[in-house]
Amino acid sequence: MPLETFPNQFPDREYEIEIVCPEFTAVCPKTGQPDFGTITIQYVPDRTCVELKSLKLYLQDYRDRGIYYEHSINVILDDLVSACRPRRMVVVGQFTPRGGISSRITARFQAESPL
Amino acid sequence: MPLETFPNQFPDREYEIEIVCPEFTAVCPKTGQPDFGTITIQYVPDRTCVELKSLKLYLQDYRDRGIYYEHSINVILDDLVSACRPRRMVVVGQFTPRGGISSRITARFQAESPL
Amino acid sequence: MPLETFPNQFPDREYEIEIVCPEFTAVCPKTGQPDFGTITIQYVPDRTCVELKSLKLYLQDYRDRGIYYEHSINVILDDLVSACRPRRMVVVGQFTPRGGISSRITARFQAESPL
Amino acid sequence: MPLETFPNQFPDREYEIEIVCPEFTAVCPKTGQPDFGTITIQYVPDRTCVELKSLKLYLQDYRDRGIYYEHSINVILDDLVSACRPRRMVVVGQFTPRGGISSRITARFQAESPL
Amino acid sequence: MPLETFPNQFPDREYEIEIVCPEFTAVCPKTGQPDFGTITIQYVPDRTCVELKSLKLYLQDYRDRGIYYEHSINVILDDLVSACRPRRMVVVGQFTPRGGISSRITARFQAESPL
Amino acid sequence: MPLETFPNQFPDREYEIEIVCPEFTAVCPKTGQPDFGTITIQYVPDRTCVELKSLKLYLQDYRDRGIYYEHSINVILDDLVSACRPRRMVVVGQFTPRGGISSRITARFQAESPL
Amino acid sequence: MPLETFPNQFPDREYEIEIVCPEFTAVCPKTGQPDFGTITIQYVPDRTCVELKSLKLYLQDYRDRGIYYEHSINVILDDLVSACRPRRMVVVGQFTPRGGISSRITARFQAESPL
Amino acid sequence: MPLETFPNQFPDREYEIEIVCPEFTAVCPKTGQPDFGTITIQYVPDRTCVELKSLKLYLQDYRDRGIYYEHSINVILDDLVSACRPRRMVVVGQFTPRGGISSRITARFQAESPL
Amino acid sequence: MPLETFPNQFPDREYEIEIVCPEFTAVCPKTGQPDFGTITIQYVPDRTCVELKSLKLYLQDYRDRGIYYEHSINVILDDLVSACRPRRMVVVGQFTPRGGISSRITARFQAESPL
Amino acid sequence: MPLETFPNQFPDREYEIEIVCPEFTAVCPKTGQPDFGTITIQYVPDRTCVELKSLKLYLQDYRDRGIYYEHSINVILDDLVSACRPRRMVVVGQFTPRGGISSRITARFQAESPL
Repeated sequence: MPLETFPNQFPDREYEIEIVCPEFTAVCPKTGQPDFGTITIQYVPDRTCVELKSLKLYLQDYRDRGIYYEHSINVILDDLVSACRPRRMVVVGQFTPRGGISSRITARFQAESPL
Repeated sequence: MPLETFPNQFPDREYEIEIVCPEFTAVCPKTGQPDFGTITIQYVPDRTCVELKSLKLYLQDYRDRGIYYEHSINVILDDLVSACRPRRMVVVGQFTPRGGISSRITARFQAESPL
Repeated sequence: MPLETFPNQFPDREYEIEIVCPEFTAVCPKTGQPDFGTITIQYVPDRTCVELKSLKLYLQDYRDRGIYYEHSINVILDDLVSACRPRRMVVVGQFTPRGGISSRITARFQAESPL
Repeated sequence: MPLETFPNQFPDREYEIEIVCPEFTAVCPKTGQPDFGTITIQYVPDRTCVELKSLKLYLQDYRDRGIYYEHSINVILDDLVSACRPRRMVVVGQFTPRGGISSRITARFQAESPL
Repeated sequence: MPLETFPNQFPDREYEIEIVCPEFTAVCPKTGQPDFGTITIQYVPDRTCVELKSLKLYLQDYRDRGIYYEHSINVILDDLVSACRPRRMVVVGQFTPRGGISSRITARFQAESPL
Repeated sequence: MPLETFPNQFPDREYEIEIVCPEFTAVCPKTGQPDFGTITIQYVPDRTCVELKSLKLYLQDYRDRGIYYEHSINVILDDLVSACRPRRMVVVGQFTPRGGISSRITARFQAESPL
Repeated sequence: MPLETFPNQFPDREYEIEIVCPEFTAVCPKTGQPDFGTITIQYVPDRTCVELKSLKLYLQDYRDRGIYYEHSINVILDDLVSACRPRRMVVVGQFTPRGGISSRITARFQAESPL
Repeated sequence: MPLETFPNQFPDREYEIEIVCPEFTAVCPKTGQPDFGTITIQYVPDRTCVELKSLKLYLQDYRDRGIYYEHSINVILDDLVSACRPRRMVVVGQFTPRGGISSRITARFQAESPL
Repeated sequence: MPLETFPNQFPDREYEIEIVCPEFTAVCPKTGQPDFGTITIQYVPDRTCVELKSLKLYLQDYRDRGIYYEHSINVILDDLVSACRPRRMVVVGQFTPRGGISSRITARFQAESPL
Repeated sequence: MPLETFPNQFPDREYEIEIVCPEFTAVCPKTGQPDFGTITIQYVPDRTCVELKSLKLYLQDYRDRGIYYEHSINVILDDLVSACRPRRMVVVGQFTPRGGISSRITARFQAESPL
C-alpha cells in the first residue's frame, strides 16, 4: 500500500510526532517463522505529515513478506523519508525474543545539520 | 472559554511549571469518533502564570470540536503563548490507540535564545 | 497443522501446565484487518501432553484465517481437548484494543466433576 | 444508539467475555463538569453476545448526558441485560479522582442461581 | 462536618461502591506529629448512599484531631454506618511508615448474615 | 526489649491490623553473616493491641542475635501471641536472596476455630 | 548432590516455607540447547526441613542434564518429598520463552487429606 | 519553625544531598481546601547542611497556611537558601490532582556559575 | 563456537543494533559456583553485522568456563569487535546478587572519534 | 575489615563497574536507632579493582558504628579511593524514610579532568 501524506499546517514551527505501532509482524526469511515487534516512528515534519491510516496499511503489508530485522527497519525509514520528506526521523524496531535473544534496531535520518 | 492569567510573583527567577491534564477529549473530524489523550504543558513563566481553573475550562471546550491531533496541540500552544507570554513552553499530547497505533505530538515555543 | 501429543510420564499425579503464547494473530472476518492477542492455555494432563512445537505451528495457522474472537478461543479449546483429552483445561484470549475497547474471552473444559 | 447482539455459537459451553472500555465520559449533573472513567463488562453469554461496535456507540451516547456514577453503572447493566440476556454479568465503573477522591461502582446480574 | 446521604435508586440490586481517599491526615496524640494515610471505603448500600462531598469534608475534619490509627478507622466506620445504614461495609486505613514500620487497619460491618 | 500492649478500644468488633517492618536484620548462626528481611504481622486483636514502638525495639533486638529464618519467625509469633493474646495472627518473614535463593516463612496462630 | 534436611523445631505448628530459585538451568533433550527457569517450592514441614545449601547444590546438578520441563518439575517434587516428608508441597517451574511460547509447570504433593 | 543547619564536614568535595518529603500539605487560599504534595530538595552544600528534623518541622508549618503552589515552592527555596547557603539547590513540588489536573513546580538556585 | 557475520546492507547509514541476552551463565573461578547475568550488546555496524544464532552459541560456550565478571565482559567485547569491526560498541553485563551484592560491568569500543 | 583489590586485567580500556549493596545498615549517632540504606558504587578502574568479598565485609563493619548519612557516604568514598585509586568513582547512599523523609547522598571522585 502506498504511504499517503497531508500538508503540515504548522510548517514554521519545529514540532515532533511520535507514532507507536505494537502490532508489526513479518516473516523470517531463513526459518519461514513469523517475527513480531513494535515499530516506533519519531519525526519532525517539514511540508507534509504521514497519514496514519495509510501507515497502518503500509505496515500490514509486511505480514507476508520475508525480511530480516535490520532490513525492515531501514526500508521503513527509506519509504517514510521518500513519502513525507521530514526534517529528521528515527525508526525503532523492538522485536520479541528468539532463542532467548531479543533485538532492537534504530535507524536515523537527518535532512541537513545534526540535532 | 478565555484563558486567564495571574501575575508571576517571582519574575526574577527562572522556574518551571508542569501541568498534566489526563482528561482531554475532542472529536476526530474524519470519523466523527471521540479521541482521548493526556495533555502535558511545561513552561517557564515570565510576567504571568496560567490560571488553572480557566485552563481546565479552556481544554473542556475541545469536547465537541472536530480537530486533528497535530492541529489541537499546535493551537493549544499558540493560545497559551498568547495568553501568558512565557519564556519557553512545551505542549505534549499523548493520544490513545486507534487501529493499533498510538500518537504523541510535541510542540515547543522559545521566546528568545535556545535552551 | 495437526496438534501432536506425547505420553504423560506422571499420569498418577494431578499437575498443571500453563502455556502463554503472546504472538497470536488472525484476521477479523468483518473488516479484513489483522487482530492480535495473547493465548493462555492451562490444563491438567491425563494420558497425554500437548507437544509445544506442534502447538506453535497450529496457532500460526490462524494467521490468514478470518475468525471472530469468541469463535477462535472456543475452536482452540475444542481442538486441544480432542487432541490431548485433558482432565480439565482453560483457554484465555486477551486481544489488543480496537476502537478503544479491548476484549478477553475465557472458555473452560472439565472432563468429569467440577474443580 | 441501540445495543445490537449476534447469536452465541457456543451456547452449550459456559464461557466468559470481558470487555474493557477506558474511554467513558459523561457529565456530572450537579456541577456540569465532565466525568471520566473505565467501564469493564464481564459476562457469560446465553443465546446472544453483545456486538462490540454497537456497544462502543452506546457508551459514546453518555458523552453529553448528565448522570451520576451510581446511576450510569446500574443503567448500563440494565440495558446490557435487556439486550443480550446473559447468564450472569458484572459491570464495573472506575472513575478518576474528584476533590482527591476516586470511586468504583460494581453492579451484578445473575440469571438464576448464585455463582 | 455531618455526613450526608442521598436515596439509593437501585435498592433491589446488591451492588458495591468503593471510595479511595489518599489524602487523609490526622495528628498522633502521643507525639503531636501529623500522620498520613489512604482511607478506602467499600460498601453495599441499602436505602441510602454516602454523598461524596460531605464525605470529603468529614474526613478533612480529622486534620487537627489527635487520634490513633486504630481509633480513627473504627470511628470512621461507626460514623458511616450510622449515616447510611449499609448492608455491609469495610473501612481500610493504610498509613505511611513511622520508625520504619507501616500499618494497615481493616474494620468491617455486616448488617445481618456473613458474606 | 519487652513487648508492650494497650487496651483494644473496640473489643466487640473483629478488625484486622497489619504491620510491615522492612528493616529486620539478624545474624546467620552458621556463617556469622547478617541476614535481612521484611517482617509482616497480621492479627485480629482481642483485649489488647501491640504497641508499635515497643514492637520496633523488640525487633531491633534480633540485630545481634544468631538465629535461623524458620526459628525467628516462629519465635516472633510465640512472643507476640504471649504478649497480646490475639484472636488470630499471621507472621511472615520474606528474606533477601542468599546463593541465588530467597525464602519466605509464614506461621499462623488461631485462638479457637479455623478461619 | 544428596538433599539434606534438619529437624523441624516447631512440629506442632502448621507453617509454610517458600523458596524461590531464579537460577535454574537444564538442557533440552531434543535440541541440546540450555533451558532457563525459576523454581518455586512451597511446603509445610512435618518432622524435617530442607537444608538450603544442599538444595542449591541439588538444583545445580541439573545444569548438564538433558530433561524436559514436565519431567524436571515432577522429579524435583519426588526427590524433595522423599527427602523431607512434608505435610504438603507444591513445586512450580516457570520457564523462559522458546519460539515465542513460555511454560509453567505446577506439581503438588499432599500427605493425607486435601487442603 | 526555624530551619537549623550543621557544619558540612566535607566542604572541599562537591557532593549532592536529595531529600524527599511525600507528606507536604498546605491550604488553598482560594478554596480553603487542603492541598497535598511531595517536596523534593536537591542541593550541593557549601559550609552547612540542612538539619533534617528542623526541616520536617519547618515543612509541617505549612499545614495551616493558605498559600498557592507556585508561591510555596519559591518560598521554600528562598528559606532554604537563606538558611544553608548552598552552592546550588533545586526544590520540586509535585501536587495531587485537582479538577483532573496535577501540577509540578520546579525552582532552582545557583550560587555562582551555571552547572 | 566462532562468531559469524553477514554483510551490512546499509553501510552508508549510521544505525544502531541492540541485542539483549538474559540467559548468560558462567562459572565463578574462585568458588566453582555458577554465575548468572544478562548481556546487552549495542553497536553501530560498519561493513558487517553479528549473526544472531552464532552469537547465541558463542555465549553458550561460557556455560562451563571459569571466568570473572570483569573478564567475561571485556573478552566478549574483544571477540565481537574482532569479528564484526563495528564503528562503536558497548557490552554490558548485569549479574545477579551474590552475598547481597549485585554487579554491572560496562565496556566500550570506539573505532575512531568519540561520540 | 581492610578493602582488598586485584589487578585490573584491562587497564588500557576505560570501562565501568557498578556495585549495588541493598543491605547497608549503621546506627544513628543522635538517636541510637539503626539506619538502613542501599549503597551504589560506580567506578572506572585504573590499575586495580575492588574485591567484592572484602567490600561486603567492609560495609558490614558499619553495622555497629554510629555515623550520619552524609559522613558515611563520604567516608566510604574516601576509603574506596584510597584502596583502589580509580580514574573516577561515584558513591550513592539511598536511605529509608525517617519521620516521613527519605535521603539520598551522592559523592564523586575524579582523578584528573572532569567527565
